[in-house]
Amino acid sequence: MTQVLDLVGIFVFALSGALVGVRRRLDVVGMAVLASMTALGGGILRDLILNVTPAAFYSVGYVVTPLAATVIVFFWHPHVERVMPVVNVFDAAGLGLFCAVGTAKAMSHGLSPLHATLLGVITAVGGGVLRDVLAGQIPTLLHDRQFYAVPAMLGSAVMAMLSVMDLHGWPATLAAAVLAFCLRIAAMWFRFQAPLARGVSPQE
Amino acid sequence: MTQVLDLVGIFVFALSGALVGVRRRLDVVGMAVLASMTALGGGILRDLILNVTPAAFYSVGYVVTPLAATVIVFFWHPHVERVMPVVNVFDAAGLGLFCAVGTAKAMSHGLSPLHATLLGVITAVGGGVLRDVLAGQIPTLLHDRQFYAVPAMLGSAVMAMLSVMDLHGWPATLAAAVLAFCLRIAAMWFRFQAPLARGVSPQE
Amino acid sequence: MTQVLDLVGIFVFALSGALVGVRRRLDVVGMAVLASMTALGGGILRDLILNVTPAAFYSVGYVVTPLAATVIVFFWHPHVERVMPVVNVFDAAGLGLFCAVGTAKAMSHGLSPLHATLLGVITAVGGGVLRDVLAGQIPTLLHDRQFYAVPAMLGSAVMAMLSVMDLHGWPATLAAAVLAFCLRIAAMWFRFQAPLARGVSPQE
Repeated sequence: MTQVLDLVGIFVFALSGALVGVRRRLDVVGMAVLASMTALGGGILRDLILNVTPAAFYSVGYVVTPLAATVIVFFWHPHVERVMPVVNVFDAAGLGLFCAVGTAKAMSHGLSPLHATLLGVITAVGGGVLRDVLAGQIPTLLHDRQFYAVPAMLGSAVMAMLSVMDLHGWPATLAAAVLAFCLRIAAMWFRFQAPLARGVSPQE
Repeated sequence: MTQVLDLVGIFVFALSGALVGVRRRLDVVGMAVLASMTALGGGILRDLILNVTPAAFYSVGYVVTPLAATVIVFFWHPHVERVMPVVNVFDAAGLGLFCAVGTAKAMSHGLSPLHATLLGVITAVGGGVLRDVLAGQIPTLLHDRQFYAVPAMLGSAVMAMLSVMDLHGWPATLAAAVLAFCLRIAAMWFRFQAPLARGVSPQE
Repeated sequence: MTQVLDLVGIFVFALSGALVGVRRRLDVVGMAVLASMTALGGGILRDLILNVTPAAFYSVGYVVTPLAATVIVFFWHPHVERVMPVVNVFDAAGLGLFCAVGTAKAMSHGLSPLHATLLGVITAVGGGVLRDVLAGQIPTLLHDRQFYAVPAMLGSAVMAMLSVMDLHGWPATLAAAVLAFCLRIAAMWFRFQAPLARGVSPQE
């Protein structure tokens, strides 16, 4: 079940990457690169830091799913844009799952809870940062003031604590993922805003 | 012989990197960084993913060659610009060689043919992508609609298939490299264009 | 003692990252990301290339120090801007220390003096390059014509030579670091400028 959710998360992240490609008028190669980097980049960064071969390089589904998302956006991007509110809900689910899975993998490789939490956040948000850098824009994570990294951080911290208490397996992963998901949905619903440095006025 | 070709490829990739540095009015440090990243970046990404020390960090030629290219472009960049059509032919040769060598190395590290093909493409195009990101522009690979990644993908796929059939060594590598080279030259000659998403008009 | 200096260097690099975040009007998440990447990015690149788990992922101080710098810049950035000349002196100290430490670590992992020098430079300047790429600007290292990479290169080369002569430990590290520090201060004092390619006029 975690595996199915994992591929759903990858698919939705890839949709967001391919859509950025369409908006920036990239060609089909650019769309496929952005889709793959958004979906797989966070996990690749995590695995490089953990010093293991990235999961994306021995799983077939991880390579094929972003390409499927690219094909769908290539032909039907106006429809995909129209269902973006729904896509955003799935994106929140992907965020939750990726931070929980990343933290769990980091703990199982012997990182401390603090560092496993950090790596969980990197797993969840790294792909979106790479997507924006490749698309030539400042990563939205850094300036759009949405609560995106914070839910991932809290979900990762809870996952790390559950791991310390010897609670592993998919129920613990799911609990942490659901927490991050709910926080993210709440942040979107109530329009939480991350603060700017004292005295700095928002960009027009 | 593959080694000589390898250094020629690195030299030509480094020329293209240093030239981007001149066009963006970078100083000599920026030229050397772009030359080195363009020439070595793809191989470094490949080796990080394969979890081995990057070849660039134990070969002397890999460090010296990009610096030599930087010196040449520093003093004689107008002449280098003038011979760019020739440089582009060598660039196509580098593309072909790097995708074949990258795929072969990935297969020898136990990756599946699918993933070895992917890593071959990353080896061939990764340096150019890093060059453009560092130079502050959207990677040309993603938007210029040239067939650059596609020849690398086909050359990598053929290399992977030859490897599966137990055909290794430099004849197989050369065959795959020549295929990618010819496809790239044909794409330049006939001005193949990668498609944009349906309904998207090209950038002015 | 080297460890205290190390954390001071990380703190000062993190200040510069967080300040770039304020200038670009990023939110607190962006400030924390830039602070951490500036301070830790060079060491992470070094350790990825050396194929070991990055030091930032098992040291508590390395995670907490950039966050402390972020908090300080968040509340008191006008004061931090005012003391930038002082910060620049500490930045030069961080540059010197990081290039020496990075080179020593590379030598102890069996790299040649040439490649250890290269990796020392990457350790010292990599964080600033990642900071600028994430902030959506061409890395200042590549175009601002300051002598920033050159002092790091000379310090790294001296560290590598001392290592070859079997001079290890903190006195050798400190000697190389002080050399790079003095060169960097001299370059700022006398306004050394890295050359542009022949015939290229400086940007307005």
